[in-house]
Amino acid sequence: MGFRSTVPAFGKKVIIEARVNEYMPRDVNPNVPFTPDEIVEAAVACREAGAAICHYHARNPDGSPNHDPETYIETIRKLRAASDILINPTLGQVTLKSSDEARLQHIVSASREPGLTPDFAPIDIGSTNVDVYDPAAKTMRTDTLAYVNTPKTCAYFARRMREVGVKPVAVSWTIPFTRMFEAFLEMGLLDQPAYLLFALSDSGYLGGHPGTIKGLLSHLEYLPQGFRYEWSVNSKVGNLFGPAALALEMGGHVAIGLGDYPYPELGTPTNADLVRRIAEHAEAFGRAPASPAETRALLGMS
Amino acid sequence: MGFRSTVPAFGKKVIIEARVNEYMPRDVNPNVPFTPDEIVEAAVACREAGAAICHYHARNPDGSPNHDPETYIETIRKLRAASDILINPTLGQVTLKSSDEARLQHIVSASREPGLTPDFAPIDIGSTNVDVYDPAAKTMRTDTLAYVNTPKTCAYFARRMREVGVKPVAVSWTIPFTRMFEAFLEMGLLDQPAYLLFALSDSGYLGGHPGTIKGLLSHLEYLPQGFRYEWSVNSKVGNLFGPAALALEMGGHVAIGLGDYPYPELGTPTNADLVRRIAEHAEAFGRAPASPAETRALLGMS
Repeated sequence: MGFRSTVPAFGKKVIIEARVNEYMPRDVNPNVPFTPDEIVEAAVACREAGAAICHYHARNPDGSPNHDPETYIETIRKLRAASDILINPTLGQVTLKSSDEARLQHIVSASREPGLTPDFAPIDIGSTNVDVYDPAAKTMRTDTLAYVNTPKTCAYFARRMREVGVKPVAVSWTIPFTRMFEAFLEMGLLDQPAYLLFALSDSGYLGGHPGTIKGLLSHLEYLPQGFRYEWSVNSKVGNLFGPAALALEMGGHVAIGLGDYPYPELGTPTNADLVRRIAEHAEAFGRAPASPAETRALLGMS
Repeated sequence: MGFRSTVPAFGKKVIIEARVNEYMPRDVNPNVPFTPDEIVEAAVACREAGAAICHYHARNPDGSPNHDPETYIETIRKLRAASDILINPTLGQVTLKSSDEARLQHIVSASREPGLTPDFAPIDIGSTNVDVYDPAAKTMRTDTLAYVNTPKTCAYFARRMREVGVKPVAVSWTIPFTRMFEAFLEMGLLDQPAYLLFALSDSGYLGGHPGTIKGLLSHLEYLPQGFRYEWSVNSKVGNLFGPAALALEMGGHVAIGLGDYPYPELGTPTNADLVRRIAEHAEAFGRAPASPAETRALLGMS
């Protein structure tokens, strides 16, 4: 009698992306990194714990958003000196209402510095409202935050990123985002294997699917067929461990960090603590963390 | 031995809404009504075939969009004189980039005329891109049509409609729209029983779920619990008969018409032909068409 794992993805390496800070405050968890040095320290620890990619937002020492390309470049320079972790800076998006060119400015600027081209940058491939609802107070905390990304804008980002050698992370909040991702693959605007990230949303953020296994499952029913890509999942302001289990089972990847959710369930964990838990959970599914080099191979990055 | 229907909604009346024209051209099907008189003629035939609600867009004799409140009012006056069908004019939306007040202007103007208050008006309760992809040419036909409806705008529409006595039709394109619909119910911005319409999208329109039974099923998995509402389904530029079967089975309602899809599969049917087919299909599910009066009762309209 032989046993055989029922995990479809048994043996496949898992890409763990550490989403270290976003614009999360420190009031619930003091381990959210703000400055370039803090981001580097967190990223190095995450790399040791199993992460292959670091996603970060540049912030001022007081935690407020910092949109200066120089701060992004300083962070990349220090990250590259300290670690082989792959680098995925954010774009200027909800917090920076500006032109397509301006939203990509820090990525393009960094790519002009020798050795400092970011490995990835995200493209949110659709539009949705990202306002926050407070169910306890029965009121909207914000009510005008339409997060608008037209196909024209997304195509611009994809072309410019290809020109400067940055791999896009196509981010899908709803099923129409995934349909547009498929159209972009058909139009040849994204190189294959592509990288697709499902952004679930919770804690009153209503712009994505709920941050549950069911919420991710509804996305997976619309995975494009006939194209090569890897997919991952994160949960904005929600506990990711449910959806992460589905990703581990189904051959997806995992993007977790204090930027998305401070994990008070675990006390005040660090980003590396979260990465380590995912790596350990992955082991039970027969999946080991992909190194940065293995991640580049999975995603066809030269 | 006794037989018992397995249809959960067996015996429940079905509200059939005729979506007679939108901005559909006549090149595939000449039966799309443009002028007020043509709309009235189509609506009367639809009412006889089983429809309880008529949704229409005012258009010029050449078919182009007409945003003049007077044309909307003329149509309502003629409809009320000819039929008891409930009236659901569109809002000025994608084609009319203007203020919230302007988008609702024809509704408010009509409500000031004795006996001409529309019964319904739609509120698309979220944002999505409504561009059209051409899979044959592998190109976007449009690439800047973000359809933006912030919670602030939607709340304004809901409050004004309540003030003037118009019942909102909350339209959901994606799961976040349904989450916002639930928040609006919790906030008391929509009277119960509310009316929710799932807008599927097809033929290269990527802004909703695919126009399939599966596409509707993914919506139904997120139906809000603990509130009173009725739900319906339409498919923008897609054949509705698959999703309509699921709606008939599950106790939902059906919104069909040449405005959404010209149904070349059926030759050149009229709007009433489509309504009749749905009514006949409903009979097989043990469901008869709701009259306008029964529709008002189902939706708690005084």
